[in-house]
This record gives sequence, structure tokens and C-alpha cells, in this order.
Amino acid sequence: MSKLVGVPTVGMIGGGQLARMTHQAGIALGVNFRLLAEGQDVSAAQVVRDVQVGDYRDLRTLRTFVAGCDVVTFDHEHVPTEHLHRLEADGVVCRPGPDALVYAQDKGAMRDRLTALGLPCPRYRAVRNQDDLDVVAKALGGWPVVLKTARGGYDGKGVWVIDNAYAGDIGEIFAAGQPLIAEERVDFARELSAVVARSPSGQAIAYPIVESVQRGGVCYEVIAPAPGLPEDRAVEAQRIALRIAGELGVVGILAVELFETRDGRVLVNELAMRPHNTGHWSIDGAVTSQFENHLRAILDLPLGSPRPRAPWTVMVNILGGPYADMHKGFLHCQARDPDLRIHLYGKEVRPGRKVGHVTAYGADLDDVRARARHAAAYLTGEIDE
Amino acid sequence: MSKLVGVPTVGMIGGGQLARMTHQAGIALGVNFRLLAEGQDVSAAQVVRDVQVGDYRDLRTLRTFVAGCDVVTFDHEHVPTEHLHRLEADGVVCRPGPDALVYAQDKGAMRDRLTALGLPCPRYRAVRNQDDLDVVAKALGGWPVVLKTARGGYDGKGVWVIDNAYAGDIGEIFAAGQPLIAEERVDFARELSAVVARSPSGQAIAYPIVESVQRGGVCYEVIAPAPGLPEDRAVEAQRIALRIAGELGVVGILAVELFETRDGRVLVNELAMRPHNTGHWSIDGAVTSQFENHLRAILDLPLGSPRPRAPWTVMVNILGGPYADMHKGFLHCQARDPDLRIHLYGKEVRPGRKVGHVTAYGADLDDVRARARHAAAYLTGEIDE
Repeated sequence: MSKLVGVPTVGMIGGGQLARMTHQAGIALGVNFRLLAEGQDVSAAQVVRDVQVGDYRDLRTLRTFVAGCDVVTFDHEHVPTEHLHRLEADGVVCRPGPDALVYAQDKGAMRDRLTALGLPCPRYRAVRNQDDLDVVAKALGGWPVVLKTARGGYDGKGVWVIDNAYAGDIGEIFAAGQPLIAEERVDFARELSAVVARSPSGQAIAYPIVESVQRGGVCYEVIAPAPGLPEDRAVEAQRIALRIAGELGVVGILAVELFETRDGRVLVNELAMRPHNTGHWSIDGAVTSQFENHLRAILDLPLGSPRPRAPWTVMVNILGGPYADMHKGFLHCQARDPDLRIHLYGKEVRPGRKVGHVTAYGADLDDVRARARHAAAYLTGEIDE
Repeated sequence: MSKLVGVPTVGMIGGGQLARMTHQAGIALGVNFRLLAEGQDVSAAQVVRDVQVGDYRDLRTLRTFVAGCDVVTFDHEHVPTEHLHRLEADGVVCRPGPDALVYAQDKGAMRDRLTALGLPCPRYRAVRNQDDLDVVAKALGGWPVVLKTARGGYDGKGVWVIDNAYAGDIGEIFAAGQPLIAEERVDFARELSAVVARSPSGQAIAYPIVESVQRGGVCYEVIAPAPGLPEDRAVEAQRIALRIAGELGVVGILAVELFETRDGRVLVNELAMRPHNTGHWSIDGAVTSQFENHLRAILDLPLGSPRPRAPWTVMVNILGGPYADMHKGFLHCQARDPDLRIHLYGKEVRPGRKVGHVTAYGADLDDVRARARHAAAYLTGEIDE
């Protein structure tokens, strides 16, 4: 670790691709970066000097890890809230702090809080059993409803669209004993995302509102800015995200996933308090990436401009497909399109797993989108030319 | 280290900021990056997972380091040529290879080779003693002449402008016994730099020709592209660099520092076969940075576009000044200019030492230049507001 005067040490819990790309941004900022990783070879651990391997659910492991960190931040939302409160009581600076992070961890708490703030959300209810669900479905306007685990879901996991309270394996979902909420299924036109950064001193910036395209519950494509989004709706979406960041006391990146309804409203779907898949376009597409602004925010440095550098930027995720050798695909994609930006995460290829992303930018959306989609499809193994 | 299928391991010798920024680019490419560093805490060693500390002048150290590397490359030109020949004989892939690298290591060999190729250079002669120098000065058109050590000089070190063969401490220079060359002092209008990348399969790209401004023999500012440079002269400079890369068999980045004379010629001053200070602007200013293209070239991947992303990009070096705490300057510079790109190298501040650089870009050269200069001057400690 560098012992340079005035250089802060950032500890990041979780060794996925978000930590990997945060470290990459931190290299330019000259910060010391320390990682608590799930294993020696996870995505971020491959590229960071100062790695500790351990279980983020273990308080002792966390306490050892944070010693000497000026600020602690997160690659995911899974660190138990009670551990974070203990660390805060020890004097550790967690950013975002547990009182904010709980709203990204617990969808029930998030819905209650946003509703109390008057922010637009789908209608929802906590549900304890199948009979409850049957009653709630009527209150929410009828079937289908969306059933979600309050904690622990991501990328479509822990989310079910239900047509009937007693159908199939719904009994098993309730038998697991986890807190669940049911929400009206929103008839949305598309999904949007608002990524903002907020510093402890209250400075905040908002990236342009993007459109995110999902496939099977997993983010597939992000278009920045969201095509055809009316200016007033874009501003409203940014305001919602900035208001949430301020009211909840978020420090760092906050991503607000939104539904744009067919009648022109925006509703909050999910919150994430960390760099987010819908912000990856900013690495190549904005003046300051979400990863750099996350670090600047948690270090209470002035935030960088979120301004886009091209009229259109499109990011497409590379999902694991039939090819184990991701590196080989470079030869084809890079030769075909020297302007393409490919980002690999150093992750073993498994079907459907996010192993990288590609970004293209330019003045013609159709062209930019076609280039990004082609490369991702090739690297994913969907096409072979 | 990642054991992923098809992922190559790059070994880089030397742990300075060039290795640091190369690793940063390599994170996105998903390559394994291994470092032979001069110490545990040198610039690149702070941010790389797989660091071996050792002396690059020791063949055994080098042999241990290169085991398992698919390709070996360099942060500097100081690895002894004879060691690189031994490694090549062992089957190690060095890029650039010793037969090319020697022309970046030995200025006498470089001048002889470029002259034989008919490439424009200042007039020069090898000189063995002060009497030699006195004779050579006349052959070069009279005093002053520029005396250079053939090996080991950089950033103005190992270079002297001489008015008289017997003046001052010139005797000491010769007494050191190192090979020296004398060159005519070129009455140049400004200095230019041509940065190109070349892959083993012969693909090559050329970045726009930039203007570099020196202060005390050290690069201070780089403007991309060089303002007011006639198109034909820019193409000539690119052709010279591409020809050198091809003729010398350079793999990776080649930087050719050039004099632009008052009568409109370009003459080769120095060569570097690694990412170069005059290419740092490309991180924020080009589609593909010189660091990424260095890696793509040495891995024989298709090269990325060197196209500039803004009409003007200006990079100014941050040199060590009175402030030990470089991080603190962020508060001022980042708050003043959210579009500014600051890159710190994790190096202890010593007077005149390159500890980082700032980059600004935009459509108005005067504005871009003023912003970059202001931030560098503030971070260097030359101004305090």
C-alpha cells in the first residue's frame, strides 16, 4: 500500500466486476484500493494489489478488513445491515451507510419509504402466505401480480410473475420463510434508469436517463440517452433519483430503475446503491464514469461531469454462451470494428453469466446499436460471423 | 492469476507510471498482468495483483519473472540488450524484441540505422574525447553542438549543449568512459511527436501528430493534434514513424520525437519503444489509448482506432513541487473544472518529478489549453488559486 501523504484508502466489499471497474477508475485518482473478495480469483481480485479473502457475512472478517480503511464501500447489497451498524458504531465510515443501504437491501422497506415520500411506485403489499396473496391480488387490481423476495434478489432471481395464488410451486416460495412483497404488474412501455451520484457534503450529479432492455430479467442493452424520451419526463426521472438520494442520505452512486408506463408516467422499480449495469456506458460514453464518480462521492471530492461525449452510446452485456474462450472473440470483433470498446471481467464463462460488456458510440443510433449488438452476440456465441 | 481459457499473461518489466497505466488498460482487455517492479511500493506495484520485486539487470531474476508469461514487454529501455537476447534464445517472446529495442537504447546505433534508411536526422558523429569533439563540431557546422550519452539518458539527463570542447566539466563527461555522440544543434521551430503502434503481423496505426512543449528537457505539455501543422507535413511525420516501426521490426508502441525546423522539415530526435509521455492524451482524447494499443499490439490482437474524440486535447504533466499532498489539490481543481481529467501516479512528490498529468479536451484550443495548464500549475504548486 502506498504511504503517500494525503492518499486515502478505500475498502470495497465484494470482488465482482463492479469492484474491478471501480479499481480501474481509482488508479487514475491515485487512491489506495483494498478489496474484501469471496475468493483469490474472483473478477476484481485478479487485478487489485491489496486483496483479503473472506466472508462478508462474518463480522470479525469485516472488522479485520476495515482496519486502516478511510472509507468502506460495496460491490453488492448483501452485507448484513446489522454488521454495518456495528462497523459504524466502531467509527468506520461506510458509504453508503447502513441507514441508506437498507433501502437497496429490503424492497419492502424501500416501497414503504418511497411511498411515504410521495414518490411514484407500483402498488404493493407485504404478503405472508398464499391466502394473503389471493386477497392482495384483488387489492392490486387483479392477476397477474409480481411476487418478490424483499431481500437478496437480483437479475430476475427472487422475482416471479404469478397468475394464481395456489398455482405450481408457489407454496415452496412461501415455505422458505423469507419476507415477500406482491406488486401490481405494471404495463410498462419500456424500462428506464436514472443514475446519480451524491457526496456526503450534498453535491449531486445526474447522468442522462437511459433506456434499459431486459432479457429474461437480466439487463441486455442500455441506450444513452433514452431515445425519444420527452425532456420533461427525463427531468422528472432525474429529480426522482436526486430526491431519493437526498432523502435517504445515499452517498456514492444511486441507480433508480424505472418503468415508463404507456400513459407517460415513470414509476420506481428498484434501487441500487453502487455502480450499476445501466451506468457502464459511462466508462466510454461520459466525461466521468460512474465508477470514478462513485469514488469521488464516497471520498467527498467534487464530482465529475456526467456529460455524454457522443450523441448516442449503447452498451450491450456479454453473457456466457457456448464459448469458454472469450479472448478469442476479440480477433473477430476488434478487426471488424476498431472503434468498439470491449470490457471483459475475467470471469469463467457459464451460461447466462455476465462476463463482460461492449460499448459503441456515435451520431447514428441505428448504427451504434447494430455495432454493439453484433459484437455482444458474437462474443456471447449467438452468431458466428 | 486467472486460469481462464485463452487468457494470455503479459509480463511488464519496470514498475513506473507507464506500467501502471498499461495495467489499467489491460483490466478491460481481461488479460493477466504480471509486473517486475523495482520495489514493493513503486507506481505500478501499488495497483497490480501479481508483482515480483527484483532487479531487471539480473538475468536470473528476469528468467524467474518471465516463466509463465506469454509475452514480455517494457516500462523503460534499461533492460540490458544481452539479457533480452538470452531470453529470446530461451524462447521467451519479448515485444519489442531486443533487435528492435537496441535502437531505443543506443542513440549511436539509432542514428546509424535511420541514416542508412535515408530518414531525416540531425547530423551527428560518435565522439571519443575532447579533441574529437573539437574536430566534430566543425564538421557539424560549428558550435554549439549537442553532446549525448548513447545509452541511459532520459528527460534531459545525459544531454548537454556544448559551446567549446574544453569548457567547464566536459572532461568529466568523457572521463566516465561512456559512448557519446555529438549532434548539430537543430534550430527547430517546435517539437512534434509521432506515436504509432505495430503488431507482429504487421498491422499498424498512427495517432495524430502532436506538438510537445519541453521545459528544462522534460515534457511539459502535449497538444493533440499539433496546431497549424500542414496536412502533408503531418502525413510525412506519420510515414517516418510507420517506416521506422516496420524497418526496425518494432512491436507495440513506437514514439518518434521530432524536430520541426523553421524551414518546414521534420527531423528525428529520439525513439521510444513503449507507451510515451506524448501519448498520454490518448487515454481521454482518443477512441483507443496508447496503453490499450500497446497491449493489443504485443498480443497480436487487431489494433484499436487512434481517432481523436475531440477537436483538441491538451495534456500537461504534473511535476513535483512544494506540496507533498497531491490528493488535496483535487478539491480545488475538480471543483473548478468538472470536465477535467486528472491522473495521479501514486508517486512520492520530489521536485521536478512527474507525479501525474491532467488532460482537458474540447472545441476551443485556447480554453482547453488554459484549463489543463491551470490545473497542472495548481497541482504542481506554481499557483495557489
